Amino acid sequence: MESPEQTIAIIGGTGKEGKGLAYRWAKAGYTVLIGSRVREKALATVAELRERLGEAVRMEGMTNQEAAEKADIVVLTVPYAAHQETLLTIKDQVQGKILIDVTVPLMPPKVTRVHIPPAGSAAQEAQNILGPDVQVVSAFQNISYEHLLNDHEIECDVLVCGGTRAARAEVIKLVEAAGLTGWDAGPIENSIVAEGLTSILIGINKQYGVESAGIRITGVQRKKE
Amino acid sequence: MESPEQTIAIIGGTGKEGKGLAYRWAKAGYTVLIGSRVREKALATVAELRERLGEAVRMEGMTNQEAAEKADIVVLTVPYAAHQETLLTIKDQVQGKILIDVTVPLMPPKVTRVHIPPAGSAAQEAQNILGPDVQVVSAFQNISYEHLLNDHEIECDVLVCGGTRAARAEVIKLVEAAGLTGWDAGPIENSIVAEGLTSILIGINKQYGVESAGIRITGVQRKKE
Repeated sequence: MESPEQTIAIIGGTGKEGKGLAYRWAKAGYTVLIGSRVREKALATVAELRERLGEAVRMEGMTNQEAAEKADIVVLTVPYAAHQETLLTIKDQVQGKILIDVTVPLMPPKVTRVHIPPAGSAAQEAQNILGPDVQVVSAFQNISYEHLLNDHEIECDVLVCGGTRAARAEVIKLVEAAGLTGWDAGPIENSIVAEGLTSILIGINKQYGVESAGIRITGVQRKKE
Repeated sequence: MESPEQTIAIIGGTGKEGKGLAYRWAKAGYTVLIGSRVREKALATVAELRERLGEAVRMEGMTNQEAAEKADIVVLTVPYAAHQETLLTIKDQVQGKILIDVTVPLMPPKVTRVHIPPAGSAAQEAQNILGPDVQVVSAFQNISYEHLLNDHEIECDVLVCGGTRAARAEVIKLVEAAGLTGWDAGPIENSIVAEGLTSILIGINKQYGVESAGIRITGVQRKKE
């Protein structure tokens, strides 16, 4: 196991995606920094999560920049419309670190149609913005975040793309710490598959009248969960 | 169930992908036309499959053009290097029909890296070549075809993209006739996800030391298999 001594920043940590991940990692013993454009919002989210998790958890609220600066690993959970701007805000603070990009390049209102950004994927856009000294690893795009907050077992695996193989292995440990199964899904060029799966799963939800269609990798021995 | 009165052409039907699908559909009672550039090769494949399935199955061997002409539904199973050329060969014969494209745009030797063709996917390339009067529906990209030939239960679902919703529903019936579970995965723009998953699954096979990693859709009631 990765040492829970690691500090994880969640940029855009006041949204439901960020909250769900913060909840799971704080519960697993990691120090979690909730970032927001507005410090007060971050503090409100910390207060909300402390109510559920107790005062003993290691969690702080601050601006996105401060969180990115203080953390060992930075997780980006903002809507696609805020992706580029937010990355520019934290670019200096994430140099030399792993940035986990959760972004799906959805183009409302056609969210069930895969949209390929010019760079090939949202993760590749992030890599282009941040430069070669940041390990951009994409993950978690297909998870229904309400479930992260509700202690359900989540019937959905996580595809982990980008960065070096070692960086992906580190992210897979964080996936496991959140109670999920992660798979090394290869180089950053593969991220469009994980990102685009979100549109397919939203479409399956609509068409089959369910709320959290997911995917599982089959044919490989799973770790015990 | 779709009436097994339908006739299915398998273009490139002498490859292992085509053979596997031909085997399953012939067994399910469909009339299967094995197409090849060279008629004698198609006849040899028919003889080979008849040895396994018996003489009662409805199966014939012929050229790709003849097969496409005579069939109700046309299935394309050729390597990506032959994709464009083969489509041009059968363009006139498939007008007004459903063409099921099984092609994955792999670029050897980097087959574990997703390659996005300029049109967005191999299926979109096919649609551009064939024109608007053909329902190009992509499917079966992630199936290990050896398993189709071996009567195994296959632990891998099929994502069905492209064409109209009705065309996808028709293809899903053929997926089920082959013993698999198919899902309506939306418009043709989504095909790159199904195509690209093949690279991710090849990578997982290599990295985790297995031979047929696959995917399953979770969170939705499955039909009985």
